[in-house]
Amino acid sequence: MTRSEPIHEVNFAPPRPFGKVLKAKIKETLFPDDPFHQFNGATLPIRIKQGVKYFVPIFEWLPNYTLSLFKYDLLAGITIASLAIPQGISYAKLANIEPIVGLYSSFVPPLIYAVFGNSKHLAVGTVAACSLLIAQSLQEVVSPTDDPHLYMRMIYTATFISGVVQTLLGFLRLGILVDFLSHSTIVGFMGGTATLISLQQLRGMLGLNHFTQHTDVINVLKAVFKNRDEWKWEPAVIGVIFLSFLQFTRYVKQKKPSLFWVSAIAPMVVVVVGGLFAFLTRHNSHGIQVVGTLKRGINPSSIKLLIFDNEHIQAPLKAGIITALIALAEGMAIGRSFAIMKNEQVDGNKEMIAFGFMNIIGSFTSCYLTTGPFSKTAVNFNAGCKSQMSNVVMAVCMLLTLLVLAPLFSYTPLVALSAIIMSAMLGLIDYQKIYHLFKVDKFDFCICMAAFIGVAFVSMDMGLMMSVGLALVRALLYVARPATSKLERLPDSTLYRDIEQYPNGTKVPGFLVLQLGSPIYFANANYIRERIMRWVRDEESAKSGEVVEYVILELGGVTTIDITGVETLLEVRRNLQAKDVKMILVNPRLEVMEKLLRTKFVAKIGKESIFLAVDEAIEACRFLLKTSKTVGNENHV
Amino acid sequence: MTRSEPIHEVNFAPPRPFGKVLKAKIKETLFPDDPFHQFNGATLPIRIKQGVKYFVPIFEWLPNYTLSLFKYDLLAGITIASLAIPQGISYAKLANIEPIVGLYSSFVPPLIYAVFGNSKHLAVGTVAACSLLIAQSLQEVVSPTDDPHLYMRMIYTATFISGVVQTLLGFLRLGILVDFLSHSTIVGFMGGTATLISLQQLRGMLGLNHFTQHTDVINVLKAVFKNRDEWKWEPAVIGVIFLSFLQFTRYVKQKKPSLFWVSAIAPMVVVVVGGLFAFLTRHNSHGIQVVGTLKRGINPSSIKLLIFDNEHIQAPLKAGIITALIALAEGMAIGRSFAIMKNEQVDGNKEMIAFGFMNIIGSFTSCYLTTGPFSKTAVNFNAGCKSQMSNVVMAVCMLLTLLVLAPLFSYTPLVALSAIIMSAMLGLIDYQKIYHLFKVDKFDFCICMAAFIGVAFVSMDMGLMMSVGLALVRALLYVARPATSKLERLPDSTLYRDIEQYPNGTKVPGFLVLQLGSPIYFANANYIRERIMRWVRDEESAKSGEVVEYVILELGGVTTIDITGVETLLEVRRNLQAKDVKMILVNPRLEVMEKLLRTKFVAKIGKESIFLAVDEAIEACRFLLKTSKTVGNENHV
Repeated sequence: MTRSEPIHEVNFAPPRPFGKVLKAKIKETLFPDDPFHQFNGATLPIRIKQGVKYFVPIFEWLPNYTLSLFKYDLLAGITIASLAIPQGISYAKLANIEPIVGLYSSFVPPLIYAVFGNSKHLAVGTVAACSLLIAQSLQEVVSPTDDPHLYMRMIYTATFISGVVQTLLGFLRLGILVDFLSHSTIVGFMGGTATLISLQQLRGMLGLNHFTQHTDVINVLKAVFKNRDEWKWEPAVIGVIFLSFLQFTRYVKQKKPSLFWVSAIAPMVVVVVGGLFAFLTRHNSHGIQVVGTLKRGINPSSIKLLIFDNEHIQAPLKAGIITALIALAEGMAIGRSFAIMKNEQVDGNKEMIAFGFMNIIGSFTSCYLTTGPFSKTAVNFNAGCKSQMSNVVMAVCMLLTLLVLAPLFSYTPLVALSAIIMSAMLGLIDYQKIYHLFKVDKFDFCICMAAFIGVAFVSMDMGLMMSVGLALVRALLYVARPATSKLERLPDSTLYRDIEQYPNGTKVPGFLVLQLGSPIYFANANYIRERIMRWVRDEESAKSGEVVEYVILELGGVTTIDITGVETLLEVRRNLQAKDVKMILVNPRLEVMEKLLRTKFVAKIGKESIFLAVDEAIEACRFLLKTSKTVGNENHV
Repeated sequence: MTRSEPIHEVNFAPPRPFGKVLKAKIKETLFPDDPFHQFNGATLPIRIKQGVKYFVPIFEWLPNYTLSLFKYDLLAGITIASLAIPQGISYAKLANIEPIVGLYSSFVPPLIYAVFGNSKHLAVGTVAACSLLIAQSLQEVVSPTDDPHLYMRMIYTATFISGVVQTLLGFLRLGILVDFLSHSTIVGFMGGTATLISLQQLRGMLGLNHFTQHTDVINVLKAVFKNRDEWKWEPAVIGVIFLSFLQFTRYVKQKKPSLFWVSAIAPMVVVVVGGLFAFLTRHNSHGIQVVGTLKRGINPSSIKLLIFDNEHIQAPLKAGIITALIALAEGMAIGRSFAIMKNEQVDGNKEMIAFGFMNIIGSFTSCYLTTGPFSKTAVNFNAGCKSQMSNVVMAVCMLLTLLVLAPLFSYTPLVALSAIIMSAMLGLIDYQKIYHLFKVDKFDFCICMAAFIGVAFVSMDMGLMMSVGLALVRALLYVARPATSKLERLPDSTLYRDIEQYPNGTKVPGFLVLQLGSPIYFANANYIRERIMRWVRDEESAKSGEVVEYVILELGGVTTIDITGVETLLEVRRNLQAKDVKMILVNPRLEVMEKLLRTKFVAKIGKESIFLAVDEAIEACRFLLKTSKTVGNENHV
């Protein structure tokens, strides 16, 4: 061994200035998709034009829109409108509000989305989970039966707040918040909600007059079985027939995707057939309850109904914020999924702004919370929609319905709506996905089940919080207990790899090479210190007579370090020195190196203790070791 | 180029069974210090003996205890007792309880700690921050002046709950929770508390009769200046003299550490001199208020005073849990700091159990919350203590005080106590550390200031929560926005390093090498996808004509991956394929590889797309590229 110097020099350049680092961090955190890259080097008028196009996507796609595209959108729009009518009425019932509001909500919001939205496949509408959640939160403070007017005002206020929250999140580029609703949480939440809503439909299916206000499985089942004397066979029979029909059409769609329209118009068929039946048999005489009066006319203004006084704002505030996030998570996840199929981009932050505008304006025009529901969007996609125009077509259909056909829907039997909701819900319980989670990742499975069980047995917000809480605990555990591993050299190479993964490595006597991962900072600093000392202890006790002379810490996987982390490294060095072991650092990354320089750590341990590769560090240290031993022996002699 | 196969084979062994992984994870999370390693291979009797020694450290150190060690501990014990008397009385005043309880609290808990504690330097006693915090929480529900008996009962209950929480945390090995109180939080919290407590002492210094119950800087200052007509010059003069004396002795200690005892007995001197002065000048006649009656006798039992009924349990529960954590954080941090100086180990989880027992038994014997205060422990250490015996000596001194001397301390002037507290507090505001934080890490500085300002201007628990919340947000941001960087080959080597850090690297045309860090999972999956696509876009737009043929993802720094992460990688691959770019993975670690195998990811992308080193991946791909081009050209011809 002849050389003592490593070939490659470590970069000890002084840290970048704080301002520059901060700017880069903010950019990475809030603008990971770099939305301004298109403006680089453009003149001002072009920039303005680009900016308007960026924020109002209709200017982007409408100029290139052609009649041939419209044919597709027309078909898709009519199909989703036929789904929107029964769904609008059903979900309004879930939220305990007048059915007509459900229809209003499929008229104005789709028009707004067509202007600001940037997903081509998303179909706007109300969703079951949010409808139930909003009702659950508001019912705690005001009863929808005792004071329907105040309840309605709170619904609009909650919608307005949702819109404001969504818009703000979009402008603040906080799409990152939605990232924390993991896929496992969503699967569990959907499953739990679907279970709960399905069971609630037993009320309509059995024609019960009395029911519970509680929204958990146990209370709902109790209410169903306690009122056995109210059970009626007529709605039960009709309900089962309708449900079987709907499930059959879903089955047909699954077998033959080209027959998607069968399943898409099935709810409308159920509503029409049910309405005709109720009309012909003189409603209510056989225990078949119907929707009741639906006034003709378009959305009245509801601006003046919003209330913001101290006494009434709290419940809508809470409901608004939670539903805003859930609606965003659902809408964005769905928009993104379909975009991926067509290999297109959906900008999450822009979508948030579009959803926000949609709900703010919705709350002014007697609509309640809307987003992009999965069922409707899937139908829209299958019907071959080409652009946001399909939402416009749906809105026009709804306009016609509101102006002309609304009173006809008064005869819709409640049992038909229950069957429609139940059928939709049964499709949302994703058994296969849950089983997949169980097989592949037990912790993800727990996160999913926390949402499922929490929603079904406690309440929707508790379930969500439990699940998100678990996911956060996991995220924190990832950083609190980062994987460390012992490396050994692979045969015939300069590669050092984890001995647990590659057990055929060879050990360099006297050296202990450890790889640290994740950031080193306050939450894991103690752990890392303990863990390093344990590796050293294990190493020394494993083979008697084995002396560790150098501990080499491979920092390539350490993304960042804080002050506590730096202090911990110093402490490790002190502890090692007490055992007469030297500490060597290998390959600290840019951010870590800057912190080490700034805290004078490098000055303390000396630049000669930092190397660029494990191999080079070992070579240099062995040379030193040899020299010192030779010198030692000479002195001895 | 002749070889197409890399030399080193990637390990595709099937994943380890779930049970084994879970066991390893639990061990790393809860037993990072591997406390059972000493039991390996021992017989049962030895194991039991070791176990008892492990849980009750007095069996470990007492058998080897010698008289020569006792001499040191005797001196140290007497010194800390002289500090314990004035501090006990002062901090009891902070908690709005009878001064004698402060003395009780320095008798029983130190004895318990001597049996179960495992730090040799820790001195047990009450602390200012927790005394104030416990008072602040309980005053919200019961007034210490209107119903002192109920208030006292709640204090004992809160102490009991703290003890239970600490014991539980210890047995559940949840020392990890305390890790989340970062050093920055503690510095800010101490600073804010010290500022607040110092200002509160103006009451005693100015001899005010009326004061505020609020504990924030603004209200305290208001109370001081609103009652200007009550200001008295006598206590102010005495207070300033005492404070100057105390600060001077601290200065002496700083200059000559061997004179530590001057500063240690200074508070006792102040109390004795002040008491004599008050006794001689007939107390209260010159506006000098005194402590008042102190009954002779040792701790009465307080077991029957604990209350657990629904109405009264909430406030003590909250206070108990919060103070348990703060007391643990302070005590453990301090024990650990001094152990480091002597190169000894302190086991956090065992310490928690010791603290827990100390407070549970304390709550049965009229003591309130105790931990290891910084000031007392530092004095103990400086006085040369050698073992937990110094706490026993202190307890014996307190016993004598309680039995004989207690009534003498009735003449202690309040202004003397205020001076003692103020002087202790001024030493806790660590300006230099705060400045260091500002210089080195702005985010740590914000975390610190959140605690400082929150505690001083809002309330102690709000301040703590804000600071811990910020620290958690940072921890989550670390994982939500992991650093990714572009690698290039260093000259004359096979090392690939970040081009921002080592700009002299050379690019291999057609290859884009990216290093991913941190776990890949739901919270950062979207970001990572966007970021990779942006790197590709930037690469293609930077040099016109440059075509990226391969994207190589270096996964060596990725500690773990969840299902969303795996799906994201698949999505990245789909996106890249659409651009006709191939994706190659390099060096996935054990846990990541297992997840990739289990989700069938490896089967989907093919084993030939995974390599062990960047260099080998590039070599193999270049060979393929060349071959395919040659074949393509031949076909063309």
